[in-house]
Amino acid sequence: MAGLERISMTIEKDLIEKFDEMRTRNNLPNRSEAFRDLIRQRLVEEEWEQNSIESVATVTLVYDHHKKEISDKLVTEAHHHHGMVMASMHIHLDAHNCLEVIALKGMPEELREFGEHLIGIKGVLHGKFVMGPPFSK
Amino acid sequence: MAGLERISMTIEKDLIEKFDEMRTRNNLPNRSEAFRDLIRQRLVEEEWEQNSIESVATVTLVYDHHKKEISDKLVTEAHHHHGMVMASMHIHLDAHNCLEVIALKGMPEELREFGEHLIGIKGVLHGKFVMGPPFSK
Amino acid sequence: MAGLERISMTIEKDLIEKFDEMRTRNNLPNRSEAFRDLIRQRLVEEEWEQNSIESVATVTLVYDHHKKEISDKLVTEAHHHHGMVMASMHIHLDAHNCLEVIALKGMPEELREFGEHLIGIKGVLHGKFVMGPPFSK
Amino acid sequence: MAGLERISMTIEKDLIEKFDEMRTRNNLPNRSEAFRDLIRQRLVEEEWEQNSIESVATVTLVYDHHKKEISDKLVTEAHHHHGMVMASMHIHLDAHNCLEVIALKGMPEELREFGEHLIGIKGVLHGKFVMGPPFSK
Repeated sequence: MAGLERISMTIEKDLIEKFDEMRTRNNLPNRSEAFRDLIRQRLVEEEWEQNSIESVATVTLVYDHHKKEISDKLVTEAHHHHGMVMASMHIHLDAHNCLEVIALKGMPEELREFGEHLIGIKGVLHGKFVMGPPFSK
Repeated sequence: MAGLERISMTIEKDLIEKFDEMRTRNNLPNRSEAFRDLIRQRLVEEEWEQNSIESVATVTLVYDHHKKEISDKLVTEAHHHHGMVMASMHIHLDAHNCLEVIALKGMPEELREFGEHLIGIKGVLHGKFVMGPPFSK
Repeated sequence: MAGLERISMTIEKDLIEKFDEMRTRNNLPNRSEAFRDLIRQRLVEEEWEQNSIESVATVTLVYDHHKKEISDKLVTEAHHHHGMVMASMHIHLDAHNCLEVIALKGMPEELREFGEHLIGIKGVLHGKFVMGPPFSK
Repeated sequence: MAGLERISMTIEKDLIEKFDEMRTRNNLPNRSEAFRDLIRQRLVEEEWEQNSIESVATVTLVYDHHKKEISDKLVTEAHHHHGMVMASMHIHLDAHNCLEVIALKGMPEELREFGEHLIGIKGVLHGKFVMGPPFSK
């Protein structure tokens, strides 16, 4: 393990308060250690994306199907990138809301770009891109 | 096994010829036996539908996503029947064609009615309803 | 339309009785016409399988997951044929029973062979193979 | 916006170096701002989990199906929690690796607990839990 370095930063008062409350709830007494965990998690995902090896990813979307013909937009997008989209699963949560999970394969950079694009479609209430490991077909 | 009965029927010449060719390809030398198999298969499905017990079913659809906003129609239909639709899976076959499999649960009669309705949506190239057995949630 | 031919066959008494009851329930007054429908349906599927063009198919399975490690068998089978298996969807119907739908692509003959093989795995309570149309990736 | 606070912490030298390199690649010149983003993301997920409202979540898993009968373990786990598991999708990436996405609904706390448990199953190469928003069935 390399030596430790002392760094400092400015942060909004209410943000650091909420962070400290979260640490208490989650039993993370050491603030520096909690910060280091956040950084490590971020770097792991970053590392995979540095590789130029075909990888998998999933995109989780929640949207209201009444709004703006999102289903058609998603299908159209998926077909324009149909080499990247392996399959998707759709669950009708209630009379309004859909959960859709889309499984992708491709180069890490294009996966993230396409994933972020899907999440950004107007009417999507919630979206999350999950980068997976490389694989060898 | 009950006694045999001799029945007769009229059938188009080319249809019975194709049926006989099919029997040859599939190694089914006995024409009566081949007919009886068709009837038995039909009756098994029928039997499940006679039950008034909650059952499962799947609908397999192939359609061209460019045509007539079918994806939106399917999602809208599914939400109107969201108690019946458990989940669906969508695969982009090529730049045009989609394969969609929809898993349903409900009373046999309403399952078939909804399944046939989905298959009948304008633009669906191919559809098949598969009745499954009853289950107890 | 070609000319009509009169054919006759032998059939178990109780089978033809059930068939006639089914026709009554389904409003199919003409017995010959009901037979011709069964034959036509069978021939359509047969026709697709005659083609040597890459096609899609789905397999619907219901099984009790407690029995005989079926899930592992299915996954192992799917990996041995992973060029053929596009994706599968799994729904837990209750504490015992699973619904699994498997989407396949490949040559019609190998699709049916693999589909029938899956349905025949010991412990599968119900299975149905659905042949789909050819597609061009 | 509340006032700013200056905080300091200790961090491994190589970790902060990698973090700075990542910021450069991603065009995030301000180190404090990059930290604040990490914190905010963490808090948003946390917030949803504070709610005691039925919510959705997905779990993305990558595993080698040859190892340790993971498929059977996953199916068994899913059935033990079948009120929580809505459906799952399985894709065979290559002769060894599977991608599985599992859609869950339930109380936020139990969702995370079950999700972390699945990710922790021996043989899982990669797993990620994504908390979704509350919904009203």
